[in-house]
Amino acid sequence: MLTLSQKAIQMPASPIRKLVPFADAAKKRGIKVYHLNIGQPDIDSPKCVIDAIKNIDLSLLAYTNSAGIESYRKALAKYYKSVGVDADYTDIIVTTSGSEAVMFAILTICDPGDQVIVMEPFYTNYRAFALQYGVELVPISTTIENGFAVPPIEEFEKYITGKTKAILLCNPGNPTGTLYPQESMEKLGEIVKKHNIFLLSDEVYREFCYSDTPHFSAMQIKGAEQNVLLLDSVSKRYSMCGARIGCIVSKNKEVMGAIMKLAQSRLCSPLVEQIAAEAAIDTPADYFAAVKEEYIHRRDVMVELLNNIPGVYTPKPMGAFYTIARLPVEDAEDFAKWMLEDFSYENQTVMFAPAAGFYATEGKGKDEVRLAYVLKVEDIKNAVKCLEEGLKVYPGRKK
Amino acid sequence: MLTLSQKAIQMPASPIRKLVPFADAAKKRGIKVYHLNIGQPDIDSPKCVIDAIKNIDLSLLAYTNSAGIESYRKALAKYYKSVGVDADYTDIIVTTSGSEAVMFAILTICDPGDQVIVMEPFYTNYRAFALQYGVELVPISTTIENGFAVPPIEEFEKYITGKTKAILLCNPGNPTGTLYPQESMEKLGEIVKKHNIFLLSDEVYREFCYSDTPHFSAMQIKGAEQNVLLLDSVSKRYSMCGARIGCIVSKNKEVMGAIMKLAQSRLCSPLVEQIAAEAAIDTPADYFAAVKEEYIHRRDVMVELLNNIPGVYTPKPMGAFYTIARLPVEDAEDFAKWMLEDFSYENQTVMFAPAAGFYATEGKGKDEVRLAYVLKVEDIKNAVKCLEEGLKVYPGRKK
Repeated sequence: MLTLSQKAIQMPASPIRKLVPFADAAKKRGIKVYHLNIGQPDIDSPKCVIDAIKNIDLSLLAYTNSAGIESYRKALAKYYKSVGVDADYTDIIVTTSGSEAVMFAILTICDPGDQVIVMEPFYTNYRAFALQYGVELVPISTTIENGFAVPPIEEFEKYITGKTKAILLCNPGNPTGTLYPQESMEKLGEIVKKHNIFLLSDEVYREFCYSDTPHFSAMQIKGAEQNVLLLDSVSKRYSMCGARIGCIVSKNKEVMGAIMKLAQSRLCSPLVEQIAAEAAIDTPADYFAAVKEEYIHRRDVMVELLNNIPGVYTPKPMGAFYTIARLPVEDAEDFAKWMLEDFSYENQTVMFAPAAGFYATEGKGKDEVRLAYVLKVEDIKNAVKCLEEGLKVYPGRKK
Repeated sequence: MLTLSQKAIQMPASPIRKLVPFADAAKKRGIKVYHLNIGQPDIDSPKCVIDAIKNIDLSLLAYTNSAGIESYRKALAKYYKSVGVDADYTDIIVTTSGSEAVMFAILTICDPGDQVIVMEPFYTNYRAFALQYGVELVPISTTIENGFAVPPIEEFEKYITGKTKAILLCNPGNPTGTLYPQESMEKLGEIVKKHNIFLLSDEVYREFCYSDTPHFSAMQIKGAEQNVLLLDSVSKRYSMCGARIGCIVSKNKEVMGAIMKLAQSRLCSPLVEQIAAEAAIDTPADYFAAVKEEYIHRRDVMVELLNNIPGVYTPKPMGAFYTIARLPVEDAEDFAKWMLEDFSYENQTVMFAPAAGFYATEGKGKDEVRLAYVLKVEDIKNAVKCLEEGLKVYPGRKK
């Protein structure tokens, strides 16, 4: 019999994607579905991005340098400088999406059986990337009760074994919106130096911080330069998720040399989208100011409405554009499916991501969901109203 | 001490890329370098591709479906029908380059320690993809003496062990230009069925066949539909290497379901380039006729000139746009470096790919190079002249 690999069999199906057929079926029945399930903002990409594509001046779409177009890498270095990160363009390798950045980092640092520490709940696809390479994610739990706050950094040390090769964090955090304070980051720097492991810092939501203190990048930890790999993407920053352009930044030349070999093996990142991403660097500051204001408004509306629903609780996220809410249900995945399959309110319903998929620990997050506040405020209001009405009549509601 | 993974350390550096700094240095000295080292054609992308990019009608670059834009997948199904391959759009998953198609296929079928049979010499990056997942490539040798002809298919069976999960072939072949006759393909179909293994068929050079018989795809092998995965890319077909759009085609629903999970984990392929690739399907037939005629001319010129050089031999490739030549040197890598570092003829030199990197068997191909006939005939003439003059004075020339 033809057989697939064990890895393919073990590969988790995305908790969101399992629901897609039910959402599609609902739409076919004429029901409007609000998508709070995925981090796809409805905000336009900056005009300079679209213009760069329309004005492309090429007759041949040729390979670029495997490390990325040099002028784009230089523009990226300028961008990093503007956010307080010192990086020469030779410290930057362009990747085909933030996903590839994470994969390259794991592969360069970990062999099968090695461990990477993550704060749980975490971005669900980290699990798929780790599994590809036979690497184990070791979760440190955070809880909704304390707002998914970063645990005392000393806690991390307890999880370090001889197999630990890195700590992987997402700051601001998807799915929690958690921000890592400067002090926590600096302590993490000490720990990774002490144990000779790497700090992989996914900072794709850098521009979406809603606290008064500026974002503190792992690249700003003094003295930990050799241990830090910054993993980044243009997807969220410029609302250009479809471009699939990311990058890895590190001062560690040995690491970057190894990553360059991986970059060369897949030849290059997409040309046109690199050109668009280079143009994005010139996005005017007022674009970000307006976007940030809009997200704060959306968050405030969503969090208030959610907490007004009996039995629902969500903390107030301080970054990114997601919040995790606890619902009065046994199994949020069943509820999410029911909302799409068996429920509508004024011919509308809402799709969200069951949160269990963001936890590595079996059984955790079963009554939680992740909601992305990526829609206009009116749509968020309607969507949360659907959730409220759904909970009123859901047969599986907790007594 | 901070350490990289064993895989990162073992990852081969591209034999071509190692030469890049020497080529760059030569250019800085004012020397014109002819690039016969990489399959980057100088032929324009079809006008419809460039127009589709310029006319893009979007204000937001959003994620696409992880399997690819549905209209593009339907256009691909139409394209495959036009080349005799029966595939529904649901049998197609768009990938971010042919490289990703190969990686997804290996990961879905092989666990660490499993084996994949390849015909040697083979596309050098297969090695990096296999190594990433701890998979062993088992080479079946072909030789320059018999024009890298496909060995009797019965030979393949001798290499099948309990760990063999697939046979991976490239048809037409990079770096050899070898075509697999229909009879060989059908016998391979019987073998993969008999042993319950997969046939991974990389057909990115399908449009570059110079024999009278049409290309025979693995998808056309009757009765082997469940065993076959077609790996493809738009890079060469439409001279759009920089787009990074490929696909996997298979009738095996279980395999495609597993590949879909991988596709979902990296979210999607680049949006703008998918739109460009969809437009490419409408490339007029006369584009291909002109391109094919041009390549046949380039090949004929290069092969004749090479074989006129004393001590040099190359067979006549029947597909793709590469040829492997044996040179009268001990170590082609040393020679390639010398040509860039220490030699010029009328202020020009030539860069080519040492062929050892295309072999898995240690020591094979050391006196061979791969030459891509991707330049205009005049440039090819000048490039081969440089090679000829270089060989006359190279200190390491075999007596």
